[in-house]
Amino acid sequence: MAEEIDYHPMWKDLGMDVEAHDGLLAAVGGMYQDVFLTQENRPKSTEYLDNVVMNIHSGRIKEMVDHKASDGQKVVGSFCLYVPEEIVRAANGIPVGLCSGADWATDKVEEHLPRNTCPLIKSFTGFKLGKVCPYIESSDLVVGENTCDGKKKAYEYFGTQKPMHIMDVPNVKNDGTMANWKAEIRRLAERVEQETGTKITAESLKEAIRVTNDKRRALQRLSATRAADPVPISGRDSLLTVQAAFMDDAERLTGAINAMADECEQRVRDGVGVAPKGTKRILYTGTPMAVPFWKLFSLIEKAGAVIVGEECCTGYRYYKDLVDESGKTVDEMLDAIAERYFNINCAIFTPNPGRIEDVMRLAKELHADGIIDCSLQFCTLYDMESFTLEKAAKEAGIPYMHISTDYSNEDAGQLSTRVEAFVEMI
Amino acid sequence: MAEEIDYHPMWKDLGMDVEAHDGLLAAVGGMYQDVFLTQENRPKSTEYLDNVVMNIHSGRIKEMVDHKASDGQKVVGSFCLYVPEEIVRAANGIPVGLCSGADWATDKVEEHLPRNTCPLIKSFTGFKLGKVCPYIESSDLVVGENTCDGKKKAYEYFGTQKPMHIMDVPNVKNDGTMANWKAEIRRLAERVEQETGTKITAESLKEAIRVTNDKRRALQRLSATRAADPVPISGRDSLLTVQAAFMDDAERLTGAINAMADECEQRVRDGVGVAPKGTKRILYTGTPMAVPFWKLFSLIEKAGAVIVGEECCTGYRYYKDLVDESGKTVDEMLDAIAERYFNINCAIFTPNPGRIEDVMRLAKELHADGIIDCSLQFCTLYDMESFTLEKAAKEAGIPYMHISTDYSNEDAGQLSTRVEAFVEMI
Repeated sequence: MAEEIDYHPMWKDLGMDVEAHDGLLAAVGGMYQDVFLTQENRPKSTEYLDNVVMNIHSGRIKEMVDHKASDGQKVVGSFCLYVPEEIVRAANGIPVGLCSGADWATDKVEEHLPRNTCPLIKSFTGFKLGKVCPYIESSDLVVGENTCDGKKKAYEYFGTQKPMHIMDVPNVKNDGTMANWKAEIRRLAERVEQETGTKITAESLKEAIRVTNDKRRALQRLSATRAADPVPISGRDSLLTVQAAFMDDAERLTGAINAMADECEQRVRDGVGVAPKGTKRILYTGTPMAVPFWKLFSLIEKAGAVIVGEECCTGYRYYKDLVDESGKTVDEMLDAIAERYFNINCAIFTPNPGRIEDVMRLAKELHADGIIDCSLQFCTLYDMESFTLEKAAKEAGIPYMHISTDYSNEDAGQLSTRVEAFVEMI
Repeated sequence: MAEEIDYHPMWKDLGMDVEAHDGLLAAVGGMYQDVFLTQENRPKSTEYLDNVVMNIHSGRIKEMVDHKASDGQKVVGSFCLYVPEEIVRAANGIPVGLCSGADWATDKVEEHLPRNTCPLIKSFTGFKLGKVCPYIESSDLVVGENTCDGKKKAYEYFGTQKPMHIMDVPNVKNDGTMANWKAEIRRLAERVEQETGTKITAESLKEAIRVTNDKRRALQRLSATRAADPVPISGRDSLLTVQAAFMDDAERLTGAINAMADECEQRVRDGVGVAPKGTKRILYTGTPMAVPFWKLFSLIEKAGAVIVGEECCTGYRYYKDLVDESGKTVDEMLDAIAERYFNINCAIFTPNPGRIEDVMRLAKELHADGIIDCSLQFCTLYDMESFTLEKAAKEAGIPYMHISTDYSNEDAGQLSTRVEAFVEMI
């Protein structure tokens, strides 16, 4: 079984640009080596993460393609935390997060989108136009969401390239918008059922909720260990657990994360850390970090600090809330799902006090020495909210730094200098 | 009555920075001279517009301040077409558009908002922080709206500076969002009633609808004359009619616009134009143009073209639709208002085919030779939509140009060159 499988025929069958994709994989492999494998004192159980990345565009895709062929499953891709994976799973779909963490085919992208667009949006458009994302290519349906201005309008173009369903996400939280959101959840369920040809039942939805809650429970366990000093696991590896949660098989991931939590709990009891006791502790907050956008986390931890929490969509927001499991009917469970997802504190909401409260509480619980708040370039929402957050941090007496960056490495030197100065200061 | 009134005590009473404001007025006066009074063959009735601008921060403000003192009226300011002036008027309020067309106090603004924010948002924030807008200062209530990401988040800060009410505007058009929008209209009515202490009645609302429809009917009449060649009135003066509609007394404006329409209809019969027959005809579309942002219109018409229509919030969108006048009860009329305003084709909507259709139809009806589509810098929505619009223009065989600009004059030379080349080419 140790034979190397050649995945090129599969990628070709998916309609990918195989040559360009080889180049991408080599680059990601190099980055992974530099960012992850140079860490000392990693928990042994993080081997799982190495495997996830090794198989991210190959073995995992083959699994999905095989499921499509054998069980008639459909792949449903998305870009955002507001798309409930429980619904996809309950309708015999495979939910996956789509590639959006690196610049690709930028020239082509700028024929369809403004240059001044956030890198995440340009990235997923470029991955599609450049045909290098096997998740996009193997998706039978892509579910977009009206979150920020940029995404909602960019989906108008993306929808010309892939079959799409768009969920409308509210901007304010009140009874009227909750009613619309519950209707959107049902509209998604119908659309996914139509795509998969499989009706969601009370049994399948209950099971999907349990499976997804189990993922979140495992991630909560792991996260809790990071309150310890020394901290048992790095921010880089922790970020990767949630990135993996968007891509890997749910039950395999849950098992692996629980194993990591076991090992990290033991490390805490033994006083073993990935960084020495007393290392400066950073709480990250801001825009999501898609694979392979590891630049900022790498640079913060290489500056001698350790990241102890991520208040973002590729972190805490993914696992903080469970779906209530007491629902008996499909309707009750869909309502419970709507309520759980309505509780995500994205900067699209106005006002958005929940995020500020979460950041301040996490900073306290995880004993953070400072907060680093990052917005991807041209992200008006997080840029605007950084002023509110800075004020709250000041009032709480927690050192705070705001960073605006993109997927290029051009600012790496300058960012390192700023981060080093910040770590020195706190 | 020819005595000059000294408005400085009034401005001081409003809490304004009188000295800085004198500087602003002098600058606007100079711009007006250069942009408007250098035009040849203007209709004589445009004298009204000269008076509007002459009184914009003085006589008109005094009128409003006097009304507040004598009739207990309240001034309700807003920044957007989605705030129904009918409701304000029916509750004994004076609806006004607030200053947002020039850079002001940028240093102070950037302590609270990101540098990469659209100039319109920075402008109204700067006018407030610099205390140079008598409309903002005399407003008892400011009504914001969740339209773009920038405005909705910037209002979180603006609301710390002025009493605010925020309307939530949908992003998609369907039955559910219409129901929410109707609820928002009622929420506004209640808030304004609370502010003015005056209950909206069927009589007052019917009258407010009529007064506002009369404004729009007058503007429609004037606009219709611009299909003629030679065109009787310039784009600059036409833009100013709608800018005035946000600030001047409704009935005075209606009378003056009807007089302009009379004169322009006569001009059309006489073959008299503001520019020679055969002058290249431009349809403007894009972001709104608040006073005194006349740069682009001036530069287009000085390049030898004439603007024959404005598909934007300070143009066609303001007057294209009337509120249905058949409603008998407050409830029926509020629904009619909601329906009328839901029909505005702002780029916040996804998808937004109505705008594309409007642009193409207007280009045809007004015999435009080319379309100039402008986005204020960092306006993701209009920037994104420009790609859709360009495609539609190409398919219709109409020359199209997209411009991104801000309130500074730094790009004036470069823009002139681009516009001249475009006018030459069409």
